[in-house]
Amino acid sequence: MKQNRDIAVAVIGCGTVGGAVCEILLRDRELLAKKTGTQLRLKYIVDRVFTYARNLQLDDTLFETELDRALADDEVEIVVELVGGTTAAKEITERALRSGKHVVTANKALLAHHGAELLAIARQNGVSLAFEAAVGGGIPILRALYDGLAANEIDAIYGIVNGTCNYILTEMIDKEESYEEALWAAQSKGLAEADPTLDVEGIDSAHKVAIMGAMAFGIQVDFDQIEVKGIHDLQQEDVMYADTLGYVIKLLAIATRVGEGISLRVRPAFISRDHALAWVSGPFNAVGVYGHSTGHTMYYGRGAGGAPTASAVVSDIISVASGIYQVYFDRFSYWPDKNPPTNLVPVMETYSRFYMRTMVDDTPGALARIASILGNHGISLASVLQDELPENSGAEEQPHFVPVVMTLHPAKEENVLSAVAEIDALDATDEKSSVIPIVDEHPEGLT
Amino acid sequence: MKQNRDIAVAVIGCGTVGGAVCEILLRDRELLAKKTGTQLRLKYIVDRVFTYARNLQLDDTLFETELDRALADDEVEIVVELVGGTTAAKEITERALRSGKHVVTANKALLAHHGAELLAIARQNGVSLAFEAAVGGGIPILRALYDGLAANEIDAIYGIVNGTCNYILTEMIDKEESYEEALWAAQSKGLAEADPTLDVEGIDSAHKVAIMGAMAFGIQVDFDQIEVKGIHDLQQEDVMYADTLGYVIKLLAIATRVGEGISLRVRPAFISRDHALAWVSGPFNAVGVYGHSTGHTMYYGRGAGGAPTASAVVSDIISVASGIYQVYFDRFSYWPDKNPPTNLVPVMETYSRFYMRTMVDDTPGALARIASILGNHGISLASVLQDELPENSGAEEQPHFVPVVMTLHPAKEENVLSAVAEIDALDATDEKSSVIPIVDEHPEGLT
Repeated sequence: MKQNRDIAVAVIGCGTVGGAVCEILLRDRELLAKKTGTQLRLKYIVDRVFTYARNLQLDDTLFETELDRALADDEVEIVVELVGGTTAAKEITERALRSGKHVVTANKALLAHHGAELLAIARQNGVSLAFEAAVGGGIPILRALYDGLAANEIDAIYGIVNGTCNYILTEMIDKEESYEEALWAAQSKGLAEADPTLDVEGIDSAHKVAIMGAMAFGIQVDFDQIEVKGIHDLQQEDVMYADTLGYVIKLLAIATRVGEGISLRVRPAFISRDHALAWVSGPFNAVGVYGHSTGHTMYYGRGAGGAPTASAVVSDIISVASGIYQVYFDRFSYWPDKNPPTNLVPVMETYSRFYMRTMVDDTPGALARIASILGNHGISLASVLQDELPENSGAEEQPHFVPVVMTLHPAKEENVLSAVAEIDALDATDEKSSVIPIVDEHPEGLT
Repeated sequence: MKQNRDIAVAVIGCGTVGGAVCEILLRDRELLAKKTGTQLRLKYIVDRVFTYARNLQLDDTLFETELDRALADDEVEIVVELVGGTTAAKEITERALRSGKHVVTANKALLAHHGAELLAIARQNGVSLAFEAAVGGGIPILRALYDGLAANEIDAIYGIVNGTCNYILTEMIDKEESYEEALWAAQSKGLAEADPTLDVEGIDSAHKVAIMGAMAFGIQVDFDQIEVKGIHDLQQEDVMYADTLGYVIKLLAIATRVGEGISLRVRPAFISRDHALAWVSGPFNAVGVYGHSTGHTMYYGRGAGGAPTASAVVSDIISVASGIYQVYFDRFSYWPDKNPPTNLVPVMETYSRFYMRTMVDDTPGALARIASILGNHGISLASVLQDELPENSGAEEQPHFVPVVMTLHPAKEENVLSAVAEIDALDATDEKSSVIPIVDEHPEGLT
């Protein structure tokens, strides 16, 4: 874009993030112009209703209910899509791109499901699509991947990228609450939605690992191939045993090279208390990236919320308005639309250490049978923890199910799950075993 | 720069970092070309001797002892200065800039002392000067300040930016070693120089806070105004008392707004075990940045070493070769040469909590006199820790000096140091008191 003129911007969707973007553009206009040499002029705030916009005392002369008016205005060069979801947002994004406008979005679901398609549409229309705010809120993590670490081949990414889940897990650990109690606490603080499905079932984290993985590895991801497990069926007992064993449970978004392939997955995992992500608590996010020259770097900050997310949106607006983003967009190769679809390595074929808790009848030989089943699947026990029962507890005829907590040496996930299915089918076991992978600090592998 | 052609690069100085840069440029040429759409062609490796370069088996047809030849070659568009120091490096940088070549450097001393002058020379010659590698090794921290957080007004920066000091402090804490023992361990592992002055006296950290502070606040810094204290006179006792009180001692590089002014300082500080920087151990670096929209973000990684630092150098080479860096350089305002010299707020005028350890004669009234002197200077005690002596210890006529450990409520540094001078002059005290600021987590102040 040309220098020293103002760039008109239309913000579509004035909720928490949209409102904060408008506030920054209006309040900090002079600050931003001074810092960046570019005048960003908010010209339209498009929404159906303006209750929230009025609460923020935004300039009501900018309010516009007709999207068409903003899209038909040749002055508008940048459209900011903050509607959310994948239906209206997709239509708005496509129409804006086809109208020859750059689009900046915070919409991770949109990018994860339709990223390659929308990027291609942008390219066909000579404009760009920017989405720093889609991952890690205010943390400039995508910039690290496409710019700061550009000299690296990326080997792995491990992220805590959902603040709602991290808050719930922190509550479960610190206050010894059940999942339901902790979810309720998060909801009453506005940190979880009334319907928390997208967050607690790991889907939001999967959106983010899809975006990061595509960029880090230069691949096109089929979202449905990502294996996703959330925190919604985590048992308080397992959270406590994690602590006993020197671990914490975190919901991790993981993208790693596995042999010649790539694995993307989301799952609760045990990480050592010394792991760089272990201290990340409450609503904060952090993403560790392992590059072949940098080794381990990590990026930490608020992963959600109006102002932090708006910071990322506005950094994209600045980048596009300065013409910087277009260079990355046009010349660099790691955009999904520039790469063919990639088949991910199924998580069943990956190796990991595991934590396992089984309720076992406290009779002679029960533990031996479990160990023998594990052995038959080529899995060896690293540690066993079984507390003594009082000798005189209960009637002698009733089985006494006691928790047996085991950690397993690295094993193929497929083998572990087969063994556990066999173990859970024994008469000597009760309930379904808890099986949670133990994720060690990734080796740095500096070259 | 134009698209799709190759860009010739000359690397000046082939030591640890220079060698790693050459390795990346030669080994990863195709990877980088694929990722960035730019062919980076290493054309000259300039040095006096090539022993190290030969050890790395770098292409010896690129070896060149005559700097003039590289500078006179019109094909060379980017000169990478990795000589170090401020004498030859300054001359090389100036000559390269005046020859119309962009310069990429990792030289923090050069930037801290002569940044504004060199940036101005670059601008006069229509080229740019890039220096991501000067701070935080492989961590893209300057990019966070000039790009990722561009939408923010920066309020404060707290960094652990010297891996040598952090390694020594980690050893002192974990292994209960004295400073001298820990320094020796660092030296024997190649993590400290034979003459460790620049690192342990805090000068290297001051170079880095000068660079970050200038960029974050858009100011020109007089390096000599930065108040610097190193770790070389830290007592093992204070490291242990920190632990007793729930803190760790870290060497912090601090840049904060203080009223209308700016304070830059380097000093060992107590930080709570819960502080986001407390877990950063060994040779790792981390920088926390507080922006008015993002709140707290943090950047972590290896702050030194060949490959990590080379990653940052090469990311700058890519940015310059793509023409991206020039946009920031030309249009954005936070470069020191674009801003007038700024007087820093003297650290004496700043407020902080403090830790204090005084050797006090164990007689009635001694502690009361100390408390009274503090009170006279408007300083109130937050906590006192004095262990009981055995009743029958030593001859009754000799004074028994025992450590009295105090924490002080927030007070002006000037007042604290005056009070301590008075206390140390008492007959009832022995030795010089240890006085170390306690640095709390910076308030996020989200807007």
